[in-house]
Amino acid sequence: EIVAGIEAMMGDGPLQGRHVVVTSGPTHEPIDPVRYIANRSSGAQGTALARALRDLGARVTFVTGPASVPPPGGVEVVQIETARQMLDAVKTALPADAVICAAAVADWRVANASGSKMKKDGSGKAPALDFAENPDILATISQMKKGRPALVVGFAAETDDVVAHATTKRERKHCDWIVANDVRPATGIMGGTENAVTLISETGAEEWPRLPKDEVARGLAARIAAALGAGG
Amino acid sequence: EIVAGIEAMMGDGPLQGRHVVVTSGPTHEPIDPVRYIANRSSGAQGTALARALRDLGARVTFVTGPASVPPPGGVEVVQIETARQMLDAVKTALPADAVICAAAVADWRVANASGSKMKKDGSGKAPALDFAENPDILATISQMKKGRPALVVGFAAETDDVVAHATTKRERKHCDWIVANDVRPATGIMGGTENAVTLISETGAEEWPRLPKDEVARGLAARIAAALGAGG
Repeated sequence: EIVAGIEAMMGDGPLQGRHVVVTSGPTHEPIDPVRYIANRSSGAQGTALARALRDLGARVTFVTGPASVPPPGGVEVVQIETARQMLDAVKTALPADAVICAAAVADWRVANASGSKMKKDGSGKAPALDFAENPDILATISQMKKGRPALVVGFAAETDDVVAHATTKRERKHCDWIVANDVRPATGIMGGTENAVTLISETGAEEWPRLPKDEVARGLAARIAAALGAGG
Repeated sequence: EIVAGIEAMMGDGPLQGRHVVVTSGPTHEPIDPVRYIANRSSGAQGTALARALRDLGARVTFVTGPASVPPPGGVEVVQIETARQMLDAVKTALPADAVICAAAVADWRVANASGSKMKKDGSGKAPALDFAENPDILATISQMKKGRPALVVGFAAETDDVVAHATTKRERKHCDWIVANDVRPATGIMGGTENAVTLISETGAEEWPRLPKDEVARGLAARIAAALGAGG
């Protein structure tokens, strides 16, 4: 792994000299000092993608939430917890040729998170949680007026109508591609080792076969290199 | 580890022939297929306690949420996710000489959890989450009219007024002991390798020094053996 990282940095892969930012993993949104809202992302797909981009010679900034798999070697790792921290880290990492938003970001945070542990008061009523919408990292980067990366890619975890939802999402967020997948528990994809993705671009929807996440990552990295006019 | 487990099962420790149920780890309460509410428990203290009880010869049923440390060998492991599943598993494991509730159980669950991934609708408003109070496992077992275990112990994670809160909790729940600790993030206890506990019993509060979680576990296991009149 370390050797691969050094080879990539010193080699002449098609992404040599390019900077790619990859977000990965879940975000955690605190409720109080001991509780938080999480999601079932393991970070496996984002990690595999960062590794594949590194192997093609890219300089990779890897912005990761609390993942259950270790980050790859040979990339710059930025550890964050919340969606707001993730957006800050991505902005700080710019400029970049591409930003790949593979993280499963919480759409909402708890607006009234408590500094002390919330307690049951005997009334049987839960303390009211107020939610605030988190910044949309994919849309924010996609709609930058100045210095927008040449390629902005989002991942979409869907449980139904995958292509329709992902196509709408691509248009609404103004990103270049959406990598959509079906995360219904029955698929075993979220937290699993395989992925079945549909790549949504301006030319339409392209369904890939179910593959190990490493192979999905290598396929996407090659497409990213091609899109950046870097061969591959 | 396996050898220790076998030795304990075949040996003559002070808890030989006794059955102890230990709950451990966090619980996860689903919001929708990809999101859940979690807490920062690693399961390390409950796991160490199960191991220490096993080493004193007890038959241990280990009811564990999604922990970040592996369960000990030589115990019966029951994996659960939610608080309601944990209560069911504890009841199923009875009768027992002692029940030790070391898990960090969610006080509330999401009453209107969704079968599909909840989506932003563009309004900027989060979907309303309704909360329902989870069953109180410690209080339920402590107040069993028939077949109550001789010793029921709860853990209390507190962020302020540790002794006062824990003493009140012991009386309200009718358990025998509360093992209280201070989980303010600054202590590094939740998710860390050390613990500083206060043992609250009918004779008062006994503050233990900060120790590795394994040593806290051995101390508690010895006290449990003594309380069950089993030497130790």
